Amino acid sequence: MNSFGQIFRVTITGESHGKSIGVVIDGCPPGIPLKVEDFFNDLKRRKPGKAGTTKRIEDDFPLIESGVFNGYTTGSPILIRIENRDTRPKHYDDIKDLARPSHADFVAYKKYKGFNDYRGGGHFSGRITVGIVAAGVIAKKIVSPIEIKADIYSIGGKKQYEDLVKEVAAQGDSIGGIIECVCKNVPVGLGEPFFDSVESVISHLVFSIPGIKGIEFGAGFRCTEMRGSEFNDIIVDKSGKTQTNNSGGINGGITNGNDIVFRVAVRPTATIFKPQETINLKTGEKDRILPKGRHDSCIALRMPVIVEAMTAIALADLKLLSLKDNLF
Amino acid sequence: MNSFGQIFRVTITGESHGKSIGVVIDGCPPGIPLKVEDFFNDLKRRKPGKAGTTKRIEDDFPLIESGVFNGYTTGSPILIRIENRDTRPKHYDDIKDLARPSHADFVAYKKYKGFNDYRGGGHFSGRITVGIVAAGVIAKKIVSPIEIKADIYSIGGKKQYEDLVKEVAAQGDSIGGIIECVCKNVPVGLGEPFFDSVESVISHLVFSIPGIKGIEFGAGFRCTEMRGSEFNDIIVDKSGKTQTNNSGGINGGITNGNDIVFRVAVRPTATIFKPQETINLKTGEKDRILPKGRHDSCIALRMPVIVEAMTAIALADLKLLSLKDNLF
Amino acid sequence: MNSFGQIFRVTITGESHGKSIGVVIDGCPPGIPLKVEDFFNDLKRRKPGKAGTTKRIEDDFPLIESGVFNGYTTGSPILIRIENRDTRPKHYDDIKDLARPSHADFVAYKKYKGFNDYRGGGHFSGRITVGIVAAGVIAKKIVSPIEIKADIYSIGGKKQYEDLVKEVAAQGDSIGGIIECVCKNVPVGLGEPFFDSVESVISHLVFSIPGIKGIEFGAGFRCTEMRGSEFNDIIVDKSGKTQTNNSGGINGGITNGNDIVFRVAVRPTATIFKPQETINLKTGEKDRILPKGRHDSCIALRMPVIVEAMTAIALADLKLLSLKDNLF
Amino acid sequence: MNSFGQIFRVTITGESHGKSIGVVIDGCPPGIPLKVEDFFNDLKRRKPGKAGTTKRIEDDFPLIESGVFNGYTTGSPILIRIENRDTRPKHYDDIKDLARPSHADFVAYKKYKGFNDYRGGGHFSGRITVGIVAAGVIAKKIVSPIEIKADIYSIGGKKQYEDLVKEVAAQGDSIGGIIECVCKNVPVGLGEPFFDSVESVISHLVFSIPGIKGIEFGAGFRCTEMRGSEFNDIIVDKSGKTQTNNSGGINGGITNGNDIVFRVAVRPTATIFKPQETINLKTGEKDRILPKGRHDSCIALRMPVIVEAMTAIALADLKLLSLKDNLF
Repeated sequence: MNSFGQIFRVTITGESHGKSIGVVIDGCPPGIPLKVEDFFNDLKRRKPGKAGTTKRIEDDFPLIESGVFNGYTTGSPILIRIENRDTRPKHYDDIKDLARPSHADFVAYKKYKGFNDYRGGGHFSGRITVGIVAAGVIAKKIVSPIEIKADIYSIGGKKQYEDLVKEVAAQGDSIGGIIECVCKNVPVGLGEPFFDSVESVISHLVFSIPGIKGIEFGAGFRCTEMRGSEFNDIIVDKSGKTQTNNSGGINGGITNGNDIVFRVAVRPTATIFKPQETINLKTGEKDRILPKGRHDSCIALRMPVIVEAMTAIALADLKLLSLKDNLF
Repeated sequence: MNSFGQIFRVTITGESHGKSIGVVIDGCPPGIPLKVEDFFNDLKRRKPGKAGTTKRIEDDFPLIESGVFNGYTTGSPILIRIENRDTRPKHYDDIKDLARPSHADFVAYKKYKGFNDYRGGGHFSGRITVGIVAAGVIAKKIVSPIEIKADIYSIGGKKQYEDLVKEVAAQGDSIGGIIECVCKNVPVGLGEPFFDSVESVISHLVFSIPGIKGIEFGAGFRCTEMRGSEFNDIIVDKSGKTQTNNSGGINGGITNGNDIVFRVAVRPTATIFKPQETINLKTGEKDRILPKGRHDSCIALRMPVIVEAMTAIALADLKLLSLKDNLF
Repeated sequence: MNSFGQIFRVTITGESHGKSIGVVIDGCPPGIPLKVEDFFNDLKRRKPGKAGTTKRIEDDFPLIESGVFNGYTTGSPILIRIENRDTRPKHYDDIKDLARPSHADFVAYKKYKGFNDYRGGGHFSGRITVGIVAAGVIAKKIVSPIEIKADIYSIGGKKQYEDLVKEVAAQGDSIGGIIECVCKNVPVGLGEPFFDSVESVISHLVFSIPGIKGIEFGAGFRCTEMRGSEFNDIIVDKSGKTQTNNSGGINGGITNGNDIVFRVAVRPTATIFKPQETINLKTGEKDRILPKGRHDSCIALRMPVIVEAMTAIALADLKLLSLKDNLF
Repeated sequence: MNSFGQIFRVTITGESHGKSIGVVIDGCPPGIPLKVEDFFNDLKRRKPGKAGTTKRIEDDFPLIESGVFNGYTTGSPILIRIENRDTRPKHYDDIKDLARPSHADFVAYKKYKGFNDYRGGGHFSGRITVGIVAAGVIAKKIVSPIEIKADIYSIGGKKQYEDLVKEVAAQGDSIGGIIECVCKNVPVGLGEPFFDSVESVISHLVFSIPGIKGIEFGAGFRCTEMRGSEFNDIIVDKSGKTQTNNSGGINGGITNGNDIVFRVAVRPTATIFKPQETINLKTGEKDRILPKGRHDSCIALRMPVIVEAMTAIALADLKLLSLKDNLF
């Protein structure tokens, strides 16, 4: 539910307009150097600020409550809190009974019998991912020397997208995009088939990010039009290096030593500043909604560092699990 | 690793040319009618027979070892075994030291230090999925009245693909394809965000199937070129029914009462009957490989029932988890 | 590791002299009334104050960071923090390299390679149990109408123990005791054999409390001298009520509708104010230790409410798991 | 439920008079030598034969279905089956509606709504432990050089108990006993507090064995009458060796390098050949029961090897988990 991982286990708490976002990182080896400053760069990368991103600005200062002593991880669980300060829950008073189309409002109301915190999407907000980014900073240290780098691949289908984003934002509309993630220096042997293939674990985590609708590894959907003689990656040396990388660095669910490569599809933000038809949650009657609040018109822009964090969490757990393979 | 699920928990064992494939289904409620004949249809759908599928023919008779008594599930764990009879492990003697390109041979050898059962891919074989199909039969009973139906969407990019498959098979080559899965009669409220969104759980399971390289829900990758005003699914009544279904029946990781819709990308079979360059696992030297054995030239053709089974397993677990939501 | 439970899942963080103790309660059904005042009674019962208990006095005010909205649980994870205020970490400077006999100092130093927070036992301190008591308050609401009540059974082997405790404290020594826990209004059918018998889950949790060295259910160790004809509890009506309760309310690992009864053995506090021989962790040389700090001379006195909390956590998870039994 | 362990994970299936007992061992490192003969000694130790044990004699031949290749573990899950051959389910026809006092009959009927396999206790039978012993054989190889040895400590309160057992058996009655288990060559650092202390994990597993009502580590319940100055184990050298071992080799939930020592209380067998009052499960009416069947009059006699197996399973998982502590 709100925990993931078998050894390196991340638990996430909080709501968009609640007191704080919390993240617990358990199963972290002792002796990793860790200080508050280590989090700043990735947390900053997740922050809004560019065209197409929300006007809500949070400090995002990570309060380390436990698990770190004298500048090193202790081996005990690490609780990090990030306080919510720039909250304006009143923005949601007017529309709290109106389900935003394609947002979690309707399902959260039904699943939790109306007890959910509806302000800003509550626990379903992208705000929660600030804790994931913090966990990712630690995970990246564990998987070192693996380097994980995610970037915008396209927005609205375009590689040059700045003008498009501005135009969409000006219209009160939103737009989707694709993120590509590449991991370098990956050892052979991560992944625990049958059920914990690298693709399984990464996709499980990535689909936890609000707004993801697809993922593909290596050649991905393109491979469905390829023949085996064209798709197969020829191994050229004993380290496992291949001529091509249609497999995205993974065979049989296990890393093969080549770069892990995958792309994720980010849908346009659900909340738009255009009137839309919907229903009233309490009465069930048809109604119209025009949200206030502050929202990203292109959430994909803030997503690369979150995808990196999820990937790091996946690989950290798989790395710790793989230690057993060398016991005999 | 080889278990998945929090309440409804599936554990899978076996190798392609070992004694048997085993599957344990735990957390199954008592009182579900279950007899051997219930498995026949789905197991038959997974069997080869058509052009483009392997010549290895197994009985696939499910031996129920435990957990069923007098025609009903007892509430205790169900062990089902399916014996391997049509094995020809000698086919692999000649090539056992040669890594088939884009197959698990190389990673299995490295990860398991050469102790892996290499015959026919061992534990990495698609043969293992026969146990998954058996588990799926039980899962489908648990999720009833949800109906899960997967079908070929395209092979080699074509909707009319019979001739293409024959041509590819005649060349000793292989070809990929896309499977589409649709679930009807889905209640609102399945899914356990943050980490156990419906997409997370389904994708985790689907990427455990050998040969999957991508998954997309609803509009999927197409949504990355859409605007919010175009993508958003307008709710038209209090049951949550929407005009369009770009969300694929899932918002915020939770089912919204509309059909769950997703597509998966199946790569071309790795084993092809054409000479390919590769390396020798023991010596590390370059070599050439030309496999014998019996293989599907289009594994996608046998995949729909496996995708259905994985989806049923995912939804069964989420249904049992969701019982807690109604306690108060 | 620092999480327990399959549906109702508790995660605990913090150190004795760190910033705060944190506890995450996940899998909690929505709609349970919950306010800060609900925690006061149990947290107060855990506090020191009587003879034989430490002079360290904490506010123990529970800060609810998430998962509660408008006075009810939302179904999202609940993070509760309890700040450490009355810390005197300097007390540990003199003895930080000296392993207190029968304390975790030695093993923590070795396991965590010297990176552990040694102040007051760090993550191994009984201080952590304040979070457990908070989780127990919520668990008790979930298991209602089950009533869980734990009490001192004996201290130092005596039922009347006040003078003994004072005497021991005056000597700078410590003393053990036995806690008995009784659960009333228990339904038939909690427990998930084979591995999650009621005894298994309760004992797992109870042995997580620092200082527990034994547990026995029903007649316990006394049953090893009994014959079956004497031990067996005769069922007297169709509700399952029995004449005697040597089984402690559990048969085959499942509650039988009678009171759950068990006792736990609490050892004397490890930290005593008498000089003891030990070794220096850094040099490995023999040395002598005479701790300062503030410590309970009889931790058993503060234990009943912690045992209740652990029992409630166990039964809450088993209750949620048992919902599956009624699906068909 | 029917699985236990975080990395080294054991899943158990089967019923007393069903087709077979199955056990899946997952998370097992590759490269461990393993052949059928390795199981014979421990399986034989579990077999009946002496006075006080059942007349049901099973071959207990372990059929290795998967996970072993060319004499070594492969790293894939191991399924072992042990067939039930000497079954006489008709013995239970006469009493199938009568709940044996202090047996699982009543709770199994209620929990599983009458769908449980009632023959010989079904899934609640001690027969299931044959799979545990098989898993224990593999676990012992993993924890080597740790040596685990369990023995009868007392039967009916006596160290010399042969005559007592014969007398009780002749009367159709049963008797309880105590098993003591000692583990030697234990490294410092096993155990994962807060929730996975060594005592927590061992007790969880040991209380899964049918018939256990208590467990105590080191001085156990006796420590409740001791003072700290008497209880504390003085460390005498830098390896952590202590003068006494009242802690049972565990401090703060972590092994301290001294022998792990614990005792478990085994109750008298529930099934006795004396008439007892009870109720009829179907009618709810009072009735009398006089079982036929074949039963141990002292199950404790067959228990040492089962306790060893559970201990080995616990330590194997904790050993694999502890690998993470050495990463940095």
